Amino acid sequence: MEAAAAVESSATVSAFEVSKRPDTAKLVLNSPGPPGLREELAAVVGKAFRPRASGGGGRAAPRCAWVLTALQCVFPVLQWGRSYTLKSFRSDVMAGLTLASLGIPQSIGYANLAKLDPQYGLYTSVVPPLIYAVMGTSREIAIGPVAVVSLLLSSMIQNIVDPAADPATYRSLVFTVTFLAGVFQVSFGLFRLGFLVDFLSHAAIVGFMAGAAIVIGLQQLKGLLGLSHFTNSTDIVSVIKAVCSALHDPWHPGNFFIGCSFLIFILAMRFIGRRYKKLFWLSAIAPLISVILSTAAVYATRADKHGVKIIQKVHAGVNPSSVKQIHLNGPHTAECAKIAIVCAVIALTEAIAVGRSFASIRGYKLDGNKEMLAMGFSNVAGSLSSCYVATGSFSRTAVNFSAGARSTMSNIIMSITVFITLELFMKFLYYTPMAVLASIILSALPGLIDIKEACNIWKVDKMDFLTCLGAFVGVLFGSVEIGLAVAIAISFAKIIIHSLRPQVEILGRLQGTNIFCSIRQYPVACRTPTVLTIRIDTSFMCFINATFIKERIINWVREEVEASDGKARERIQAVVLDMSSVVNIDTSGLTALEEIHKELASLGIQMAIAGPGWNAVQKMKVSPVVDRVGEDWIFLTVGEAVEACLSAHKGTALEC
Amino acid sequence: MEAAAAVESSATVSAFEVSKRPDTAKLVLNSPGPPGLREELAAVVGKAFRPRASGGGGRAAPRCAWVLTALQCVFPVLQWGRSYTLKSFRSDVMAGLTLASLGIPQSIGYANLAKLDPQYGLYTSVVPPLIYAVMGTSREIAIGPVAVVSLLLSSMIQNIVDPAADPATYRSLVFTVTFLAGVFQVSFGLFRLGFLVDFLSHAAIVGFMAGAAIVIGLQQLKGLLGLSHFTNSTDIVSVIKAVCSALHDPWHPGNFFIGCSFLIFILAMRFIGRRYKKLFWLSAIAPLISVILSTAAVYATRADKHGVKIIQKVHAGVNPSSVKQIHLNGPHTAECAKIAIVCAVIALTEAIAVGRSFASIRGYKLDGNKEMLAMGFSNVAGSLSSCYVATGSFSRTAVNFSAGARSTMSNIIMSITVFITLELFMKFLYYTPMAVLASIILSALPGLIDIKEACNIWKVDKMDFLTCLGAFVGVLFGSVEIGLAVAIAISFAKIIIHSLRPQVEILGRLQGTNIFCSIRQYPVACRTPTVLTIRIDTSFMCFINATFIKERIINWVREEVEASDGKARERIQAVVLDMSSVVNIDTSGLTALEEIHKELASLGIQMAIAGPGWNAVQKMKVSPVVDRVGEDWIFLTVGEAVEACLSAHKGTALEC
Repeated sequence: MEAAAAVESSATVSAFEVSKRPDTAKLVLNSPGPPGLREELAAVVGKAFRPRASGGGGRAAPRCAWVLTALQCVFPVLQWGRSYTLKSFRSDVMAGLTLASLGIPQSIGYANLAKLDPQYGLYTSVVPPLIYAVMGTSREIAIGPVAVVSLLLSSMIQNIVDPAADPATYRSLVFTVTFLAGVFQVSFGLFRLGFLVDFLSHAAIVGFMAGAAIVIGLQQLKGLLGLSHFTNSTDIVSVIKAVCSALHDPWHPGNFFIGCSFLIFILAMRFIGRRYKKLFWLSAIAPLISVILSTAAVYATRADKHGVKIIQKVHAGVNPSSVKQIHLNGPHTAECAKIAIVCAVIALTEAIAVGRSFASIRGYKLDGNKEMLAMGFSNVAGSLSSCYVATGSFSRTAVNFSAGARSTMSNIIMSITVFITLELFMKFLYYTPMAVLASIILSALPGLIDIKEACNIWKVDKMDFLTCLGAFVGVLFGSVEIGLAVAIAISFAKIIIHSLRPQVEILGRLQGTNIFCSIRQYPVACRTPTVLTIRIDTSFMCFINATFIKERIINWVREEVEASDGKARERIQAVVLDMSSVVNIDTSGLTALEEIHKELASLGIQMAIAGPGWNAVQKMKVSPVVDRVGEDWIFLTVGEAVEACLSAHKGTALEC
Repeated sequence: MEAAAAVESSATVSAFEVSKRPDTAKLVLNSPGPPGLREELAAVVGKAFRPRASGGGGRAAPRCAWVLTALQCVFPVLQWGRSYTLKSFRSDVMAGLTLASLGIPQSIGYANLAKLDPQYGLYTSVVPPLIYAVMGTSREIAIGPVAVVSLLLSSMIQNIVDPAADPATYRSLVFTVTFLAGVFQVSFGLFRLGFLVDFLSHAAIVGFMAGAAIVIGLQQLKGLLGLSHFTNSTDIVSVIKAVCSALHDPWHPGNFFIGCSFLIFILAMRFIGRRYKKLFWLSAIAPLISVILSTAAVYATRADKHGVKIIQKVHAGVNPSSVKQIHLNGPHTAECAKIAIVCAVIALTEAIAVGRSFASIRGYKLDGNKEMLAMGFSNVAGSLSSCYVATGSFSRTAVNFSAGARSTMSNIIMSITVFITLELFMKFLYYTPMAVLASIILSALPGLIDIKEACNIWKVDKMDFLTCLGAFVGVLFGSVEIGLAVAIAISFAKIIIHSLRPQVEILGRLQGTNIFCSIRQYPVACRTPTVLTIRIDTSFMCFINATFIKERIINWVREEVEASDGKARERIQAVVLDMSSVVNIDTSGLTALEEIHKELASLGIQMAIAGPGWNAVQKMKVSPVVDRVGEDWIFLTVGEAVEACLSAHKGTALEC
């Protein structure tokens, strides 16, 4: 059977005289081999570890210069520090102080969200910003605790141990997770795994952030209503149930009154700050003012005796060491590592998204791998000094930028300010009402919900919107991890589905030109008689789509042959496969090509291939495909292939 | 900042006069919208449930004809049965008898491999072939138990219950798994999930089959050496350990002698059958002869008294009902469902691979979805009548084909023959030595190990070889499931990596033509001065690769600009992005395009886009990309875009 088919095929080839083969067609099979896996890896590694020569004399640079370059690479402060001016310093001091006035109340609130005592939030605003200041490449980013990571941390760790019942173990787990997250971030940076941050698509982040913001908002109902008992679950159903059951118990409207009035105050200040750009500092210091005013009011009226919940647990002094609280071979280390990797990726995603957007405004480029190193070392150092996972916060970075920060020096100023606060003013926080912390967190949430962007995504790409919606619904009704898992699963499913069902298009010629394009996309294009031109629109013809492509092509050819039954003149004589989009092919793809050729040969139809990609053509040369199809039937462009087929057919027709 | 960049960008645009814009360029933005998700789904569903009109008058066909078409669609026997001749029947009877002579000993051996009593193998050769005969579309496939599925079934179910300790529960689990596997197969067919079979790439199957063959071979050491105690694990390390420790106990060389001599006999017969095509039946009946001879010899010499292990447990009579043994709400149903889905996919993969290869020799097309339905119903019916998972066997299908089978009638003949055997000859199996069963299974294994194909895969595609090796090593050193998981993971990782790091190529013009191609692939191509032409070689520009593509392009442009520093004449004036391979794009990809445009505008470079794919161009129209880049700078082909950029630049140069 096979032998018969082969004979028939060779008969077809000889009937089609290779008449007008252009010179360019020879190029396809004679191109040099593409770089192998080894060369490509070597190039990547070489690029990664070669220090970038700055300026002209990079090549002949002496050893000490090389060391300096390497040091500057790891500590960008050495680079910008040289040209740092007093004027910049003045701007940075102003920005740093503004940042601190926003950062201190936010940090206390986020510590509460992370189910830690308030001082841990402040600790986290001391050490990581200092480390980031000497290692980071972004000039605007403000480092410290953020809402989403705080939520993530508490919601995942409380599945292992209850923070209310055993706060010491809970803290030790938090520091272990922070340490591991830092280690993961450092290794992402070292092994140049920056692409991991891209695994969360923009759409997924939009949905995830919106869901997380609502969940965080719901958690604040506890503080806002002054409830003592609350659910540990984060999903909307549990929280609403918990609130409903708590409202049956007696509750104190004082909390609610304080929370709402200061929330309105902060939002009003922000509105004014947005309206009059010069007054933006109003929005930055509003939270601090709220804390001071509410604390003073509670202290003056002794409202805590009348049911207003206050912080109470305060602890003055700077960061204590937490080295002994990190347990790397405890019973929960595997779970901690899982939590750490999620926190590491989320923290990096937020920081890099924030950093990139501000870098793009200022017109410089952020080095993702260096950012990862800086973040990682910040967190490792933080975990040793009682900090939890820190990252770049969107709201504080925006304030830092608006306040005119010129360099990471503003982070240092903020860190020093928080340090002084920890030393001197902690005891004043005793009377700060919990409701004000809730209102500060609530006021930061609208920035996380980007309805406009979600509408945009819906308008442009329905599948992307599905990812966004999946993340949102997953976070809201499941948990933070479920939301993330759903978003990543949908995103990857999208890529697989795209590979699974590639477009296969029939091409036509634009009249009067040599341009071939899809007749569905460009209905003015005319199909060439007797030659069927098909474009395979996938960059990787592989096991997952080879059968689909093969069957689609064979079905079309059969339909065409049946349609022209009897009318010999209209019968298809040749099929041209435009493989210019096919960059790579695997063994299943090659087998599919062989089978298409065999099928076409059995119908007496010539097959030609146009412009296969570099890797694809090399593999076709090694496999039997080129021999089967014939070297003469592989062309550089569709136009040449169609011309050759047409003139060959004309030759045959004349012979007949 | 942003405003300044926008102003600069618009300045660049006005400096470049749009002088020579070809008419074809207008087509790009005026093409009709691509079919939406809804239309595409409707088309797929419509195609699936529309009965194919055979011949001319399909449209106006009356209702009864439609019913007949539908029936013929489900039962292909109604189609080929009409033109079935006596001559074909005679061929089928011969083929069926040959098949039975091979199938009976194989079935008993495979039942042993599945850790079931011998009669269950025979039962499985009665019912499923009958069902398949009326529903299947392949004419050559021989249905029954196969080695890999038997191994898979026993190795996975024995993790739940030990077949030696509790054979009744084990059997009940086997039937439950078989029932569920059938249900899964039917639903794959109904929902047209034929592509699931493609998830196991050819390379993965080659590696998996080779690994499974070695594992099955190792399992036969128990029978061949006549061991009483043996490991339940299938990995090579455990088996070698078990054999070593068993050899310390007294063992009976009689078993080994019987096994080896009949193995040599069967292999010799096969060699003769291959050498002289007319004697192929020798290889087909060799196993049956071995069984008869060895049984007679053992009976005559009473060798079972001297340590030769014999089957002993035989049970005459046809398939009993096993309806009551299927437990769909038992404690192990979830595990059974997991095992069933693996078995269903593996069984289908093997059957469809076998069916397709023989269909392609005979020159007809196998309908994957109908095959799934037929297999599924065979297994559902089988599970109700004491059969375990059946599928198309490669060795028996080859014998069926060589014996001249014309239709599925040969399956019916085989089934009847096995039925008669069950009724009349079962008691003779009492004295059959286990070693002969082992030698029959061993003799079938070399067909599963395709070293030549593995070499071919290595030659053509190293990544595919990695999949193959992963499956092989996974099966050999882990377990059958681990091997499968490794193979699928590597295959999908390949697709993700391919999307993650697409090629981005600088294009050059072939002298004297209007053909642009990669200067790496075709070093004769010359770069156009002042215009940088870049092709994005991915069919889906999405979140996973958008940042990479953007950074690669911006880095190139920056390098070029730095290299031409000072020499205004050589400076790049425009960048043309060839997006003809980009079929689809998501919001991240669109953002990347916007950012590339912004960056280029800030460098005073014009950006042009050539030939974006259908979905991509629609999304670009909806998003701000087209507005930012400018409608005038979107072209159909690279040639047109480059010409326009060059002439625009010439205009500017003259003005200066």
